[in-house]
Amino acid sequence: MKLRFSGTGDSGQVPCFGCDCLACQRARLLSCHRREPCCGEIELDGDLILIDAGRMDLAARCERQRPAAILLTHYHADHVQGLLHLRWGRGESIPVYGPKDPQGCADLHKNPGILDFQPGLKPFRPLQLGRLEVTPLPLNHSKPTLGYALSDGVNRLAWLCDTVGLPGATESFLTEWRPHGVVIDATHPDSYIAPRNHNNVAMALEIIERIQPSRAWLTHISHELDADFLATSRTLPEGVELAADGSDILF
Amino acid sequence: MKLRFSGTGDSGQVPCFGCDCLACQRARLLSCHRREPCCGEIELDGDLILIDAGRMDLAARCERQRPAAILLTHYHADHVQGLLHLRWGRGESIPVYGPKDPQGCADLHKNPGILDFQPGLKPFRPLQLGRLEVTPLPLNHSKPTLGYALSDGVNRLAWLCDTVGLPGATESFLTEWRPHGVVIDATHPDSYIAPRNHNNVAMALEIIERIQPSRAWLTHISHELDADFLATSRTLPEGVELAADGSDILF
Repeated sequence: MKLRFSGTGDSGQVPCFGCDCLACQRARLLSCHRREPCCGEIELDGDLILIDAGRMDLAARCERQRPAAILLTHYHADHVQGLLHLRWGRGESIPVYGPKDPQGCADLHKNPGILDFQPGLKPFRPLQLGRLEVTPLPLNHSKPTLGYALSDGVNRLAWLCDTVGLPGATESFLTEWRPHGVVIDATHPDSYIAPRNHNNVAMALEIIERIQPSRAWLTHISHELDADFLATSRTLPEGVELAADGSDILF
Repeated sequence: MKLRFSGTGDSGQVPCFGCDCLACQRARLLSCHRREPCCGEIELDGDLILIDAGRMDLAARCERQRPAAILLTHYHADHVQGLLHLRWGRGESIPVYGPKDPQGCADLHKNPGILDFQPGLKPFRPLQLGRLEVTPLPLNHSKPTLGYALSDGVNRLAWLCDTVGLPGATESFLTEWRPHGVVIDATHPDSYIAPRNHNNVAMALEIIERIQPSRAWLTHISHELDADFLATSRTLPEGVELAADGSDILF
């Protein structure tokens, strides 16, 4: 199973339009520091499965390889906006899985085009996509949102974004499931006290400490967090790192 | 006054994802034949005014020059999807004008960020943006939609997209106003009979013939229309041409 971080930014991305903070200036100069909307790709047995669809060049990516399925965490624009164009394509329909959310985003459900929106997933009821077992996990966010526990039968990866904290049932599941890898929302620097919809770094690290994966990646990173790391040269615990756009992880 | 056609495609764009028609194959090989979502730019006295905001790289464009204002024709995703990201930028707010449409698109009105959505424009009541006089013109479409009569005091340009036919009052206004240039929706080939939301070429040409501008450009062009022109080597009347992405017109 291969995981690619195809985007690791928040809704404003890095660089953020019109911003002159050090992180945004750096990202304009060095493309390796850019952050597109938070999303990932799983490759398993030659199949491509997308996690979220907020990249603006989604159709171009899908032309290189047509995804076998798309998993949506939720219907905020920065996680689905690439579908607004992709849907008008040609060829076989693409199954799209996600939480039950009758509102969706814009007119996606009303005019799905080639997207085959499946009924809303039920928490903790696994879905089988080829050899990949996908267990939906409720998260805490301002719209119905699911994380995903992903297993190829050997390796276990939890994708936990967008969220602030974790619901008790999800944390209990993960403590028992013992993922090897965890990808988790860490949008804000710690100076952002008591956030309502996303973790700050300290909150994400506390969750990682409790779940105890071998490795963990912080994602959905704001330009404020990048600027904070630049200003403080902060380090992270062993096995934990900031995710970076375009990096691949082999399990 | 300078007009740039920053996008001349329909919602599916050219190339359309997954399509192997001749027009899509050509656009993959030669970028000059690509068509992004239909939108334009007006430059006057050093100010940039955007017409529609469906390009996915809108924030990058606006970083090169911050627009003085954005005019929206309507709230279908392919005309506003670039705002979903741009709104989360920094700096002074950007005024956005458009038709009265309480629904808008996704959560743009609820979470406008740096976008300053103005009250819905009233048909035929002119708005002054610096030296540019902008008169909203009702169009026929599946969502509340306005075209714009644009004048710098000397040159007159009408932007008429998206529309199928023209409401009588709009056509009467234009016949009297006598625009030098007309940009008009011609999404479909003529084989597309009795379209509901967009003109086919014959319908657009009939309107141009009645309004009698010196020059006219067909826009919002589908890959089917490009393929039709490729297959038939069809020509257009003198003074009328297919708009092309990136082309500039000086008035």
